[in-house]
Amino acid sequence: MARKRDGERSGLPRGLREQLRIPPGGSPVDLSSYDPAATPGGPPDKVKAREEALATGKRLASLQERLYAAATAGDRRRLLLVLQGTDTSGKGGTVKHVIGMLNPAGCRITAFKAPTDEERRHHFLWRIERALPRPGEIGIFDRSHYEDVLIARVRELVPAGEWSARYAEINRFEQALTDDGVAFVKVFLHISHAEQRRRLLRRLDDPSKHWKFDPGDVEERELWDHYRDAYEAMLERCSTVAAPWYVVPADRKWYRNWAVSRLLLEQLEEMDPRYPPARFDPEVYRARLATG
Amino acid sequence: MARKRDGERSGLPRGLREQLRIPPGGSPVDLSSYDPAATPGGPPDKVKAREEALATGKRLASLQERLYAAATAGDRRRLLLVLQGTDTSGKGGTVKHVIGMLNPAGCRITAFKAPTDEERRHHFLWRIERALPRPGEIGIFDRSHYEDVLIARVRELVPAGEWSARYAEINRFEQALTDDGVAFVKVFLHISHAEQRRRLLRRLDDPSKHWKFDPGDVEERELWDHYRDAYEAMLERCSTVAAPWYVVPADRKWYRNWAVSRLLLEQLEEMDPRYPPARFDPEVYRARLATG
Repeated sequence: MARKRDGERSGLPRGLREQLRIPPGGSPVDLSSYDPAATPGGPPDKVKAREEALATGKRLASLQERLYAAATAGDRRRLLLVLQGTDTSGKGGTVKHVIGMLNPAGCRITAFKAPTDEERRHHFLWRIERALPRPGEIGIFDRSHYEDVLIARVRELVPAGEWSARYAEINRFEQALTDDGVAFVKVFLHISHAEQRRRLLRRLDDPSKHWKFDPGDVEERELWDHYRDAYEAMLERCSTVAAPWYVVPADRKWYRNWAVSRLLLEQLEEMDPRYPPARFDPEVYRARLATG
Repeated sequence: MARKRDGERSGLPRGLREQLRIPPGGSPVDLSSYDPAATPGGPPDKVKAREEALATGKRLASLQERLYAAATAGDRRRLLLVLQGTDTSGKGGTVKHVIGMLNPAGCRITAFKAPTDEERRHHFLWRIERALPRPGEIGIFDRSHYEDVLIARVRELVPAGEWSARYAEINRFEQALTDDGVAFVKVFLHISHAEQRRRLLRRLDDPSKHWKFDPGDVEERELWDHYRDAYEAMLERCSTVAAPWYVVPADRKWYRNWAVSRLLLEQLEEMDPRYPPARFDPEVYRARLATG
């Protein structure tokens, strides 16, 4: 119902999730057929997008509060936003601008770096488990367990037999979490090779951005085609009914922010969390407060 | 210097920190001499406060980014906002409205509840250590280790000899953290007995706020005078040069938000974090990017 209302309001024929979803089932994915500069379902321009963001932010914050409130009465549901994409694709910018619209007290944000020695001694999902949102929270992963089928595959950090078994492991893991109340919004931020160059050059040109520039990013860029293959495999094999992948064209930052906030909104509207009923008699406490 | 500039701009004779700080040294504190509805140093009204918040939010976010950037080059500094105050004093509202102006990726927020069984088996500072901000982060404690000299004292959860030794323990702990780069902003949100009644009644009247109403809050309210004594002892004994306490009048939410954001701003301006210099030669990478 919520989705239909949105569709009417913005003139969309159907939800954004349907438009951006990689259909589950394992059909081959060819990223070259997705235009990174496209704006499917989006507003016509940046100005309009910024206007919409205000209303979207309010609705998101209100749904977030309900989700949080419901958990105080035992509702185990939570949302997990997974952000993947190459360096400069805008994972950090999405957290800043989209998650910045929410109440930070209800967010649990983790940026996954190269695993520490301790993390390496454990199963690759160990550090993921520890970072999961608790009931009522919105979890945000800036990179995730998918690194273990991305850089681990491209850089051959583990034998092929090991990373290739991980796709099915991840699907089982996510299915179990879904059964326990986790709603996934998995977003692949899709930028072009040319746009990445522009962004890296901008970091080099601006001294206040030098700290963000990692020389290693240029090395990774030289493996662009290998990463594309790894992303395609991830999208093909791990877009499931329980936890589908969405491909968000990300060359335009305003569209990226608009799309991710809409995906979260549609997901939360479908979850439709409710304020729990009082577990006390308000009259009793009104009377007690009247006297002191 | 930053503080002088602020003073000039807003017409304040001196920084807000000086105005709201409990002078270190252990002189008796009488909370009845602090008006919870006052607005010391603040803008004349809500509208003006909201206007200022936009500019303050931008400056805060910019300083936060520098702090974060500096940590990538080894700067160990971080900021820790400690929020204490009775139920309904606005700790959660402060996180939502003030911390909501920051980049959530650089914030580490912990709401301390009654200790779990595991936490109870450890020293009272164990769970605090685990929640500290890492270098470059802004930590936010909604309640804190001070609960161990507040509810623990009022409810006699531990023998008097034990809680009374904690004031000095806390001071040593905070001194050690300060030496390691933690800048404290400890805020006591000061509301009146009458304002608490209004806020509790509002929660009872609004079904969408019932989840926030804890019947236990009414029991705690009946111990108001005991809590006042415990707050006064905390302010007297733990306002140190290294980590002073600020008393923020909190009956007016707009003033509370304004004041806490200003305290953070003054602290960050004094810290004056800097973007680190590049540890690479930009020309080398510009050339590599030109070819692919």
